[in-house]
Amino acid sequence: MTLREAVLKALKEKNGDWISGETLSNHLNVSRTTIWKQVKTLLDAGYVIDSSPKKGYRITTPADLLSPNEVLPGLQTKLFGQNNFIYYQETDSTNKRARALAAEGYPEGTIVVAEKQIEGKGRRGRSWYSPIRQGIYLSLIIRPIIPLKQISRVSLLAAVAVSEALEEELNLTPQIKWPNDILINNRKIAGILSEAVTDTDSIEYIVIGIGLNINNPPEEFPDDFRTPPTSALGETQTPGSRINLLRRLLLSFENHYALLQRGDFTHTLEKAKSLSLVIGKEVRLDEKNIIISGLAFDIDDNGFLLVKDQSGTIHTVMSGEISVLPRPPIK
Amino acid sequence: MTLREAVLKALKEKNGDWISGETLSNHLNVSRTTIWKQVKTLLDAGYVIDSSPKKGYRITTPADLLSPNEVLPGLQTKLFGQNNFIYYQETDSTNKRARALAAEGYPEGTIVVAEKQIEGKGRRGRSWYSPIRQGIYLSLIIRPIIPLKQISRVSLLAAVAVSEALEEELNLTPQIKWPNDILINNRKIAGILSEAVTDTDSIEYIVIGIGLNINNPPEEFPDDFRTPPTSALGETQTPGSRINLLRRLLLSFENHYALLQRGDFTHTLEKAKSLSLVIGKEVRLDEKNIIISGLAFDIDDNGFLLVKDQSGTIHTVMSGEISVLPRPPIK
Repeated sequence: MTLREAVLKALKEKNGDWISGETLSNHLNVSRTTIWKQVKTLLDAGYVIDSSPKKGYRITTPADLLSPNEVLPGLQTKLFGQNNFIYYQETDSTNKRARALAAEGYPEGTIVVAEKQIEGKGRRGRSWYSPIRQGIYLSLIIRPIIPLKQISRVSLLAAVAVSEALEEELNLTPQIKWPNDILINNRKIAGILSEAVTDTDSIEYIVIGIGLNINNPPEEFPDDFRTPPTSALGETQTPGSRINLLRRLLLSFENHYALLQRGDFTHTLEKAKSLSLVIGKEVRLDEKNIIISGLAFDIDDNGFLLVKDQSGTIHTVMSGEISVLPRPPIK
Repeated sequence: MTLREAVLKALKEKNGDWISGETLSNHLNVSRTTIWKQVKTLLDAGYVIDSSPKKGYRITTPADLLSPNEVLPGLQTKLFGQNNFIYYQETDSTNKRARALAAEGYPEGTIVVAEKQIEGKGRRGRSWYSPIRQGIYLSLIIRPIIPLKQISRVSLLAAVAVSEALEEELNLTPQIKWPNDILINNRKIAGILSEAVTDTDSIEYIVIGIGLNINNPPEEFPDDFRTPPTSALGETQTPGSRINLLRRLLLSFENHYALLQRGDFTHTLEKAKSLSLVIGKEVRLDEKNIIISGLAFDIDDNGFLLVKDQSGTIHTVMSGEISVLPRPPIK
């Protein structure tokens, strides 16, 4: 353990209470000036530490940074995040960074994590609200060897991985609004933006961006959402561990992805269907002058939504934004 | 007209014959040293000019460089090549350059042209043979506002544009081997590599790379082709004007593309079908463990190939490499 790590450990063990510089100095057998220098490097690394001439130091919750130092020790993946874990205290957009890295040749399994995004990207050119240390802002690079036709499987897979992490880590009950929004009680908690580089025959790489609201106080969300989003904090009234969630999410993603690469999508698809908010609902799709409305009755093996309209015609929907319609009155 | 242009014009008017430095000097009313300086800038620009102390200068055919100076005067497009015409005497790959430009935000209509490619790219990681000044090595940037589902229309459109240029400019009879190889008498004369950047909902940009063999002497093709390719020279026994072909190709592409953007694919699809080498043939598709063989009987509105197998099942083929099978004996 480095001296810096020892200082951090001692601060964390106080759980937000003060510890004096003198105590630290005696405990670690170094001068108080040396302690202060170590605290300064922790501040530079993004830890929020208060200092007071009388009381000493205290680390403010949430102390959990998403840095490799914090995340890697308990990370059970084989590939994702293990070799290429790019971490920013602040960046424009993790997807933008990951796309640049993928274009440079960074391998599958590379992840980009930021504590804050200045220009967090959502679908359809929208932004993703990304205040510092409240959520997980993550992008993954994959280079799947699958037929181009199966590319939509990847977005659905990411939605399943995020949902499983929320279920297993926080005991929440997420639903997937096809293709890849994650909602709790009809409020969005996570969004996914997949960006792909392809040619006529194959996929070169895909960058999957995931934005997940965790410790956002619900009252702090901006007013400009059509439906107010939610966060893990908003749902459970207790702060969640971003570190544990990130580890669980990466592991779940890796497990489903290994199946996908072997051509096995059955398990992932079953899970996606069981979490689906739209299956069995009347939906409407309004997409570049093509309007489809009808019953969303299934998701097919490619990840496409099947919608049966009033005439009985079945539409295979590859992408788009779904509105769920109120159920018609029973006759 | 600049002095340099005047020198070039005088050289071209001699059609490959010599013109003395003195004649040029008198004609243009400048010193012989000045003439030599202008010739040097033309050499730097890629023109092939012989000089002899006794005979003067001569410009060697083919004098037609694909530079903006040569191409733009007769180019009838409104957009393609007009505002962003990036020209290299030599580059790694025009698609690589165009992708970098597109990622930087270069607009629709940008074209990249090279006289020679060091690492010319073909489909499936293959290379494209790109010797200096023999072919057209071109990449176009487009940013189509069309549903993701229609993305395959673009490759087919490019194949139609190349075919039309060969028909109209050189009176050749090209055929399209779905999705986008162009053959003459079963030998490949042009190939297309479309590379796309997309998200779940839309297309950000597509780079369309076109390699077209024009003045390649047939005996100079490397031996490692399974089927020997051909060139315009090989088919017509006379050198073709690369400039005229490039202009025609850009215009044809622009016309079909304008229709595509308006949602009208009918005309392009009809042309693609009429040029198709595979419709009506028994074909075999061997793609990542999926083998389909049967009668290729149509191309659908998305640009997908429809293949009916022996059991009567119809397969919609999005991408892949087709082998045309010998016709079974008539029973």
